[in-house]
Amino acid sequence: MALLPWYQRPDNSLLILGSSIFLLAFAISSVGHYLASLGLAFVAASLTFRLIPAVSEMFIKAGLSGIDLNKHEKLKKKVPEAIGVVAATIYLIVIFLYIPFHFRAYLLVEQQGTDGFPHDKFVAFICGLLSICCMIFLGFADDVLNLAWRHKLLLPTLAALPLLIVYKVTGGSTTVILPIFARPFLGHTLDLGVLFYIYMGMLSVFCTNAINILAGVNGIEAGQSLVIAVSLVVNSIIQIIGTEYHEGHQLALCLLMPFCGVTAALLWHNWYPSNVFVGDTFCYFAGITFAVTGILGHFSKTLLLFLMPQIFNFVFSVPQLFKLIPCPRHRLPKYDQSTGLLTMSYATFATSSLSRPGRLVLDIVRVTGLCHVRPNPEQPELTDVSNFTIINLVIKMVGPIHEEKLTTYILMLQVASSVLALAIRYPFGNMFFDQPLA
Amino acid sequence: MALLPWYQRPDNSLLILGSSIFLLAFAISSVGHYLASLGLAFVAASLTFRLIPAVSEMFIKAGLSGIDLNKHEKLKKKVPEAIGVVAATIYLIVIFLYIPFHFRAYLLVEQQGTDGFPHDKFVAFICGLLSICCMIFLGFADDVLNLAWRHKLLLPTLAALPLLIVYKVTGGSTTVILPIFARPFLGHTLDLGVLFYIYMGMLSVFCTNAINILAGVNGIEAGQSLVIAVSLVVNSIIQIIGTEYHEGHQLALCLLMPFCGVTAALLWHNWYPSNVFVGDTFCYFAGITFAVTGILGHFSKTLLLFLMPQIFNFVFSVPQLFKLIPCPRHRLPKYDQSTGLLTMSYATFATSSLSRPGRLVLDIVRVTGLCHVRPNPEQPELTDVSNFTIINLVIKMVGPIHEEKLTTYILMLQVASSVLALAIRYPFGNMFFDQPLA
Repeated sequence: MALLPWYQRPDNSLLILGSSIFLLAFAISSVGHYLASLGLAFVAASLTFRLIPAVSEMFIKAGLSGIDLNKHEKLKKKVPEAIGVVAATIYLIVIFLYIPFHFRAYLLVEQQGTDGFPHDKFVAFICGLLSICCMIFLGFADDVLNLAWRHKLLLPTLAALPLLIVYKVTGGSTTVILPIFARPFLGHTLDLGVLFYIYMGMLSVFCTNAINILAGVNGIEAGQSLVIAVSLVVNSIIQIIGTEYHEGHQLALCLLMPFCGVTAALLWHNWYPSNVFVGDTFCYFAGITFAVTGILGHFSKTLLLFLMPQIFNFVFSVPQLFKLIPCPRHRLPKYDQSTGLLTMSYATFATSSLSRPGRLVLDIVRVTGLCHVRPNPEQPELTDVSNFTIINLVIKMVGPIHEEKLTTYILMLQVASSVLALAIRYPFGNMFFDQPLA
Repeated sequence: MALLPWYQRPDNSLLILGSSIFLLAFAISSVGHYLASLGLAFVAASLTFRLIPAVSEMFIKAGLSGIDLNKHEKLKKKVPEAIGVVAATIYLIVIFLYIPFHFRAYLLVEQQGTDGFPHDKFVAFICGLLSICCMIFLGFADDVLNLAWRHKLLLPTLAALPLLIVYKVTGGSTTVILPIFARPFLGHTLDLGVLFYIYMGMLSVFCTNAINILAGVNGIEAGQSLVIAVSLVVNSIIQIIGTEYHEGHQLALCLLMPFCGVTAALLWHNWYPSNVFVGDTFCYFAGITFAVTGILGHFSKTLLLFLMPQIFNFVFSVPQLFKLIPCPRHRLPKYDQSTGLLTMSYATFATSSLSRPGRLVLDIVRVTGLCHVRPNPEQPELTDVSNFTIINLVIKMVGPIHEEKLTTYILMLQVASSVLALAIRYPFGNMFFDQPLA
């Protein structure tokens, strides 16, 4: 790579491409903010790409490092952790630079005072950033301090508060349109009122943790986030092209493109074999960015369609999260030193120690084939059950597998789920609803 | 303390007092938001007071700890560092809870849509919080990772951007009223235009670093911040009582009271002999809170009056910060193991190694008595000069001194400077200006 001229090195070409698109934004003012956001996305990708290797040593020195458990004994080394904080910070910086662009039409007017400026849109934007910034901070604090669960639930809930206020005062609707088949019973629409705010608050808490619990193999956190973000970008583009009223999707698109940029660069370094780990910082950052775009873009229900694997993984994990089935400290797959492949990891316990609901759950997963249940090979009086994660389920279906292939399979699942989501959202959506969905 | 009934333990009494005031806010709606902020200030103080000892062990485990250099060899122990992050997080949480209160008059109106709500005030509030949150995050990252100077200047500058946009779009004036004596030459007022924005941007960078460089003895960072915050509270109360148009000061007051609460509780634990260190997190958090209240409260010039010791200390430090005079890694005073007192710390160098301006600076501080200059006791061909800080200057004036007494002296200096600031601002201000100052 050292032999290439400087402008052909991939990070420099990205930087040049990004800057050119950004400059074009000044010339073509009708789509100026899209171009500015797209340009900044490339610039952010380039900066993230080159900054991560530059700061890795600093992270290891600060004690932010871990050993990759899924590697051969001989290849084990210190990998810098919480590197998502680099991507997140560059994202914040880029978005700060983007703000004047989003409102340039109003800022450039001389002496216009308070009247012309769309304060409601500006406040929505800033509230979104505030929630994102809070979650980056919380994620980083979690990586450094290993916070308790109660801390991890309190701050996301509160950080969602400004978002909800913004939703209320910018006239956000709490009315959901019902599917045609339900209208004879419940009417055309249903005003959920305060329930809708509770739903949105829970959405941001769910999103910040959803990426975090589908984790444990190289590249999976950044990979799934990139797939979701790109899917949301596609959805927003469809909405912007196809509908009259699409301000929310404009905002979402401009927030998501730079996110795709930093995430792609992070994924490059986090891909198998990982040179860096993304940390809780990245998982929280990605989750809250999705929640913010969903809420401010007024497509919080559509958002859930794109999170189907995460929702499935969360629901699947519930028996272990709530201790119906014993939950080991780590649930990531187990590395087989002899074959170099990943196999299922198990929770081991005496069946008699389970509660009644616990035994019911065990029967269900055995019958449905969601988990592998076997007597413990060393102590046959104990029972082994494969951990309740989508990752173990994939290994159960395809057998022991190489780590890189496993990540690829799960990301393909995520892509398939996005295609399904778009299919539900558009062609099928029209079968159940007689007007476009929000 | 264990013998006291639970409601007489100081932290519980604070909590009860705070909650009662908070509840009163519902009853007395005309001053409701002041009462809510005051009540939350006590609640925040109580939470900070009890949470700090509870999490100290967690910080030490995470490697966030240091040794207090100014203690006797026998008393040296690991002290948790960056504990300011606890105070700052509680501050954020409390302010999130406060937001609906600040706007309750508008939020409680049913079905009012977008029109009635004061979006411009809401956005100012949220922008302030965004800047504060960014700086807390940067401070914590600095404590954990020991960032380079260029990182520490970039983010505060960018984090000020939303604040400046808010200032512009809420019709903030860039016109300064000139003192009477200057009017014959420059006119009644002077519109600084874009220069005023640059000034405000620099103000937030200055504030975030001002507390940080007047540091190094137990209790000094939290102590000076508390004095400044209380002074700003007094100033805002004077303005609210004495003037017609005081919305900015209302906002400032409600942001500053909870800050006083968390800072007082932090100071309790940070006072000599320190059980915790506040870290860069607290210094940045305190500085940006002052900058935000000054800018949003439209009293950014008055703010500088209350920061006189910090400005003096910064200007005094410039020769060392810009390497005209060699700058050792630490400039904090030196502990004398035999007497238990603090003495001046020195920078040692060969006079011939100094640049021409460096030698000029050395002559100036020698003649004015700002620094102690002497031949190095061990190598008389080298020169010692006491480090360029206000702390060393105080030791130079009063002689070797106990650490607790030193902190008290410097805080008294800060109080005296606040009294002087109020005197300049009000009685003297009227001599030079014929209308109230902003």
